[in-house]
Parts: sequence; C-alpha cells; structure tokens
Amino acid sequence: MSFVPMLESDVEHWTHTKDVLIVGFGGAGACAAIEAADNGASVAVFEAASESGGSTKLSSAELYLGGGTQVQKAVGYDDSVEDVFGYLMDSNGPQADEAKTRAYAEGGATHLDWLMALGVPFKMSEYPERAMMALTDDCLLYTGSEKAWPYVERYTPAPRGHNLYVEGDNGGPLFIEILTDAVNARDIDVHLEARALRLIVDRHGPGQRIVGLVVREDMEERFYCAKKGVILCAGGFVMNAEMMQRYAPELAKSGTVPIGNPNDTGGGIQMGLSVGARAINMHEGFLSVPFYPPATLTHGIFVNGQGQRFINEDAYHGRIGCYLVKQTFPVYLVLNVDDYADYETASWLAAPVRGTGETLEELAAELDLPNGVLAETVGQYNVAAERGMDAAFHKSKAWLKPLTGPYVALDCTPGAGAFLPHFTLGGLDTTVDGAVLNSEGECIGGLYAAGRTACGVPRRGDGYASGSSVGDATFSGRRAGRHAATH
Amino acid sequence: MSFVPMLESDVEHWTHTKDVLIVGFGGAGACAAIEAADNGASVAVFEAASESGGSTKLSSAELYLGGGTQVQKAVGYDDSVEDVFGYLMDSNGPQADEAKTRAYAEGGATHLDWLMALGVPFKMSEYPERAMMALTDDCLLYTGSEKAWPYVERYTPAPRGHNLYVEGDNGGPLFIEILTDAVNARDIDVHLEARALRLIVDRHGPGQRIVGLVVREDMEERFYCAKKGVILCAGGFVMNAEMMQRYAPELAKSGTVPIGNPNDTGGGIQMGLSVGARAINMHEGFLSVPFYPPATLTHGIFVNGQGQRFINEDAYHGRIGCYLVKQTFPVYLVLNVDDYADYETASWLAAPVRGTGETLEELAAELDLPNGVLAETVGQYNVAAERGMDAAFHKSKAWLKPLTGPYVALDCTPGAGAFLPHFTLGGLDTTVDGAVLNSEGECIGGLYAAGRTACGVPRRGDGYASGSSVGDATFSGRRAGRHAATH
Repeated sequence: MSFVPMLESDVEHWTHTKDVLIVGFGGAGACAAIEAADNGASVAVFEAASESGGSTKLSSAELYLGGGTQVQKAVGYDDSVEDVFGYLMDSNGPQADEAKTRAYAEGGATHLDWLMALGVPFKMSEYPERAMMALTDDCLLYTGSEKAWPYVERYTPAPRGHNLYVEGDNGGPLFIEILTDAVNARDIDVHLEARALRLIVDRHGPGQRIVGLVVREDMEERFYCAKKGVILCAGGFVMNAEMMQRYAPELAKSGTVPIGNPNDTGGGIQMGLSVGARAINMHEGFLSVPFYPPATLTHGIFVNGQGQRFINEDAYHGRIGCYLVKQTFPVYLVLNVDDYADYETASWLAAPVRGTGETLEELAAELDLPNGVLAETVGQYNVAAERGMDAAFHKSKAWLKPLTGPYVALDCTPGAGAFLPHFTLGGLDTTVDGAVLNSEGECIGGLYAAGRTACGVPRRGDGYASGSSVGDATFSGRRAGRHAATH
Repeated sequence: MSFVPMLESDVEHWTHTKDVLIVGFGGAGACAAIEAADNGASVAVFEAASESGGSTKLSSAELYLGGGTQVQKAVGYDDSVEDVFGYLMDSNGPQADEAKTRAYAEGGATHLDWLMALGVPFKMSEYPERAMMALTDDCLLYTGSEKAWPYVERYTPAPRGHNLYVEGDNGGPLFIEILTDAVNARDIDVHLEARALRLIVDRHGPGQRIVGLVVREDMEERFYCAKKGVILCAGGFVMNAEMMQRYAPELAKSGTVPIGNPNDTGGGIQMGLSVGARAINMHEGFLSVPFYPPATLTHGIFVNGQGQRFINEDAYHGRIGCYLVKQTFPVYLVLNVDDYADYETASWLAAPVRGTGETLEELAAELDLPNGVLAETVGQYNVAAERGMDAAFHKSKAWLKPLTGPYVALDCTPGAGAFLPHFTLGGLDTTVDGAVLNSEGECIGGLYAAGRTACGVPRRGDGYASGSSVGDATFSGRRAGRHAATH
C-alpha cells in the first residue's frame, strides 16, 4: 500500500471542504472532533471500520488522571500535580517528553471535568483491590507502580486510574457510546467505512502544507479539502507485522500477543512519514503479565531460569512483564497453594500450572531449574518476609508473606500458554499541541497527530500505567483539535 | 543546522561533476571510493575533518570476518559460512538483516583478500588470549561471544577478529594510511575540510532523484553534481546530544561515555531523512564494560545490587555491558585478589576498588548489598566451579574457579569511575547494496549509505562483536561504491 501524498494540483474536484479533517474515530479522533467543533471549526471524521471506537472501545477505558481530580478529592486523596508530573517523568524514563507530561499533569483534573460534562459517568468511590481494572462500578484504583519501589520512595502515591461508573469491565463500549453521541450532537460529518489513503499537499518539499485527504468510501476515491488541518488519530501499528519487524522487532518477537483493533496497521504513521515527519520511540511498547486479580498472587515470587527473583512482585503487571521477557527462561510464579485460591476463576493470565509440591524439593523436581537455587531463593525471600523488609527487591511489607508450602508454580514463560499481551508506544513526534514535526524539528503545516499515531505521554513499557493510553489519546486529541481549529 | 535539500534548478553553477560523490573519508568512504573508481566511475570524496580516518582511525581496525579467511585457514580453523551467518543472525537478534548478514558471511574471506591486495598486512597467526584486541602483532582472536553460552551450543566457534600486523593497538592509523594511499593512487578527488551541507535533488516529492551535493569548503558553498549517485559515509550520531536524546535516550543516559570521532553528529542520517529516507534501529547501541585484559578477571563474578549474578562472565564485554546497565545498581566485579594481579597495569576498565576482605563477610561489609546474599551467591558459584558446571549461567568450565579469598570488588556501576563506552548501531535503512530506502520501502534514486550512517550487520549491543563495525563499514562501503558506479 502506497502512502505517497497527492498534489493539490492533481485534484480535479474536491468532494467536500472542511476546516478540519480527522482520520480515525476512536478515543483520540472523537475528542479531536468535539474540540475542533466547539472551537468553531467545521469538521469531518473518517473511520475505516463500520463503527466508531477503535482500540478505545476494546479497552477498559480507564483514564490515568491525577493532580486532584474531583473523584480523588471526593474519596479523600490529596494528589498533587507535582507528584503526577514527577511520577510520569520518572516512570517514562529518559524518553519522557517534559512539555507533554507537564500539560497532562496540570490538565488531568479539568480533563476529567470535561469528560464528565459530556456525560461520562464516574462514581465518587474507590476500588481498593490490587487489580488491572475495577470489576465493580467503583472508580478510583491504583493502575501503575505508585505504591511500589522505586517510585514510592520518590513521589507520594495516589490512585489515578479512573474507571467508568459501569459494572464490570465494560468501560470501553460505554465511553465510546458517550463520545459518539457527543460527536453526533455537533455539526460534525461522520464517515464510516471510509479509509483515508493519502494526504493531499499544496506542493512537495520544503514549506509543504497539508491541504486535504484522499479517502476511499462507497467504492471510490474522494478528495476532501482541509482549510485548517488534518489530524491523524489512526492508532498505532501493532497489527502491521512488517512495521513491527522493522521498528519494534524485540516487541514483536517477545512471544507475547499483539492487542489492539484490526486497523492498528500504522497507516497514520505512514502518512506522516510520507511527508517527512519523524517517528520516535518506535521500538517501545507495553508488555504485560496480567497476574492480578486475584491479588493474592502478589504474595508469590517470580523466578527466572536461574532460579532468581528479578523484581518486586508488587509492581504494576506491565513493569513486571517488561522485566520478565528479558530473563533467561523459563519464568515461574511460585506461590503457596493458599494464595492460588481464586486463580482459575478470577485470572486473565491463564498460565498453566507447571509444578506443585508439599516441599520445595518436590516442586523443584518438576521445574527446569538449577539444583538447589530455588531453595536458596525462597529461603532468602522467607527471611525477608519474616523481617518485613525485602532489602534485595523492596517489595512492600504489605505483600511479604513467607512461602511455606504446599507450593504451586505457574509457567509464565512467553509461549508456554499464558496470555501475555503487547502494544506499541512509538509514533510521530509532535508538539504538545499535536503539530507533527519533520526531521528538522519544524512543524509540518496543517498536519496533526494524536493518540497512538503520535508518541505521547506513555513511552516505556516498564513505566506504563493502565489508563495512560485512553488518558493520553483523549487529552492529546483535544489539544490537537483545539489547535487545528484555532490556527 | 538545516539539511533541507536544494533543488537542482536553483543551482546557478556546478563547481564540478563526478559520477559518484562520497560524504566522509573514514573506513566506509575510503572503500566506497576505491570500489567506485575501480568500477570505472569518476569519484570525489568530501571529508569535514582535515584528514582522512573518521572513527575507523580511532579504532583498533579489527575486522570481524570469517567463513574461511586465509588467516583462519593458515592458523588451522575450519570456519564455515553457515556458522558465521548463524552466529551473526542469532546474536543480532530479531532485528538482524538476513540479506546483509548473508552477503557478509559469504563475502568475508574475499573481503579480507581484497584488503590484503591493497596492502593491509595480517600475520598468519593467532593471539590466544581473551582480550578486546591483540596487543602483539598477531592476527586472529575471539572478539565476540562465540565460545560462550548460548552461542557455543548452537554454532561452531572460530576466532574471527582480524588484527593488523602491527605491534600494539595501532591498527586504526595503519589501516587508514593504507586505504588513503589506495585512494590517492587512483583518480579520486579528495576534498578535506569540506563539509557536506545538503543534498541537491532534481525535484521534491515522489520520484525524486539525488543529483548532487552542497559542500562548504574554502569558506564558500560549492555545488557538486553526481551523475550516478551520492554515498553517505558520514558516521553515526553518537556525538550529537540532541539526536541521542531523541532517538537513543536510554543509551545516552546509560551513564556511559560516547566514543567516536567529533564529526559523528548524524549529518549523513539527517541528510537522508531530509529526502524521506527511513531510519531504523535508532535506539540501539554498543555498550561495553571492557574488563579484559587481564583475562584473569574473567574468573570473577559480576554481582548486582541484589547481590545476584546476572550473566556468564566469559561472554563478550559488550554483551556484559548491555546486561550490566539494566541491573539494579551498584554492580561489582568480585574477584580473588590473585586474579586481580595485573589489573592496574593491563586494564582499560579503571573501575575503582570498592571493597576488599579476607572473608566474604569483611568484603560484604564494605559493599552496599543486602545482608547475606553475597555469601549465598558466592557459595552457589563455588559449588558450580568445583563441579565444573555452571547450571545457572553456563559460564564455561575453562573460566570456573572457586572464589576463596582474599577478595577484592571492583565498582563497575555506571558513573562510579569505570570507563564504560557506547556508540550507536542505528541508521538509514538500505538494501544490501547500500541503496537508501524511503518510508515506502522504495529506493531513493541516486542515494546510498554505508558504515554507521546506515543500519548494517551489527544491530544489537548485547550481540556485538569487536571488528563488526570496521568489517561492516568497509564491506558495505565497497558494495555501495560498486553499485553506485555500475547503475
């Protein structure tokens, strides 16, 4: 598929003209459209699928927001912008974008207000379990490593995952329904089953400006003119095997499963590249071992092929996943059978039981581990658990509990049966307002990107927090929509 | 600095016209020039520095070549193309380029012949020590992890590092002197203190062809026309802090030191990007803990902040370096004092002694490690050493020796004083013949890249072998020169 841009002078007839054209009607595209319209722009949205939603609809639609949101305040958390900013800068590592992170930390509370004003419901309550998402209709939960080492020593933790007021893991469909209603309530043209093919440019080369979009719909190519800008909100590239091999080969070959919607094929990123945009952080991704719920599994320890622990097990599942895939395999989660309790009914992990034993010797005999090291590792862990201080890995006292048997070991080795998902965190380099940058670091006139087509706030798998993607997609979509409408 | 290309129609006067223009007179540029000239092209080379050499001159100029080179045969090694290919594909991981690796494995022996025909001297001998480079005038040595786990179990090892026939670590200057003589012996225009600024293109946009080069020399801008092609051999970007932060932030922030020549500022890569080239593998780099010689340090064990070993210590120093920077710090190399012997005179590492002790208890008291784990780790290692089998990490029996004390621990933590260098392994995506690819995967007419401006055979720090860079630079330079001259 070719994304080579088309010259404006080759357009014989414009099908339609709008101020702002938006590619993709997921969380980012919807918010971009709403903001652009609310800032006075005429808007059209083009979605390749036959309905709105994108990957946001498939997600829990948790939103990672803090700095004193109304839910945080109602529940009694005094979260500060500086703690959000510090935590996100630190956990997104040396590739964190300071301007975007600053805006996101400062704008978190008002972003939630804006969503609530659209009708997105949040209960003023907390879901106190260690979980990837709330399974009740409660709102606030910890969805990162805020309470885990090393972050807990640096930033005051607060729960920042905001779960929608809907029973179970059904946030995505409800969230998209509300955003879609908000789009439909405005004077926004929505084109479904409309695939953006190529950008239209006023000319090739320096000073080039994006002036429109070639779209395939109703079995023909149509030509839409954008007076103010085109916003690419077409998702990431996790479903494009060729792009994954080229840009994120380690993630693709991690033995984990790509997750996203089928149109996450990198078309938005490719359209950007076709006009000289620069892509950054393309090798990075989220990569998870979703081992809680049940929270009791956190009492266990992960051990690698050398029989060693490698991380504090109370960290976020995505952080552990990133460490896990870099170990020498196999990797097991070793537990007391007591803590295994609800595993079969409550877990998404689906890691097979690889061994059991009344004693560690019995367990080790069923696992492919060097002689004696499992006993030593568990022995060291038990000393730490009894002391209430894990000097080696800094697992919180709250999760330290001796492993006394009988034991069970779950096989979390990639490829051995456990559900281990991944998605991408790289994309087009943009300003904090979504303007796409070229290799010179200059804005490409009339071109914006948001959501996973851009490289946003979340930039590292080992620092990821659930709710960062929908949070960043909707936040960056709004900023791009507003900027495109008003410049 | 702007790399925006210039339009041919804006050139008022061509200073000169050649078939092939080459940017950079290091190892890649020299070989590109020689091959282009030997294939009938008129050639000009532009070098920003006041002499030839680039990073190749600063290096040992070891060449990683195998598959039955004349030195390998003379010394008695029966190395196969398939073992070279397998080892390089495996050690360069999921991002290995099959076509380039195949050509390099198959062409290794004849590449050495070609260099010898130019006058590059190699002694038909082996340097049998574990070392980063031969310190005598001997030739062949192991410069990767061929004899170490996991590769030793998969591919028949052979030494493939070819050191020049010159006493000590003086390969680079001699190698460049010979290549420079070879260039000067041909009808090749050499421009020193001539900085390539921008590419000249026949037009902007699809179908664009590179037709020349804007060069700053003698305090003015000159315009050189290329009838057949421009070859970018301008090195990597390790000396450009802004590019490092954008594309390789983890490498830049690893606490290690960038090495290369001062002009490794990514100009070649930026010129490629300015005409729509795609860059790949930009986050990756070589990263070393150069702890041998003296080889006796390999008898020691590396331990991380959890007091754990993390790798087989007989692996290549670059592989260990990549593992080292991902550990929880501090990281120590723990040794018997006996094996420390020549460290102060023979080592490049310069890691400070952080602790000593007649017993492990005394040593541990001086190190910042969790209680008791050092004793357990050393205890496990000593059991493995006495058995002659390191089941956990697979260190070869040849290097297993119990740690019985008295002990010394060297502090290898980044930033603590040890010399830990890094350089980049990403660049422009090219065909096996050096043609630069755009984001559509199509060749950009008239544009080539070689050496570290391109993404070549070596692609992973943890799989790197010394001699891969000069080997790949000279090999890829030749292929690009030949292709540009004949197409």
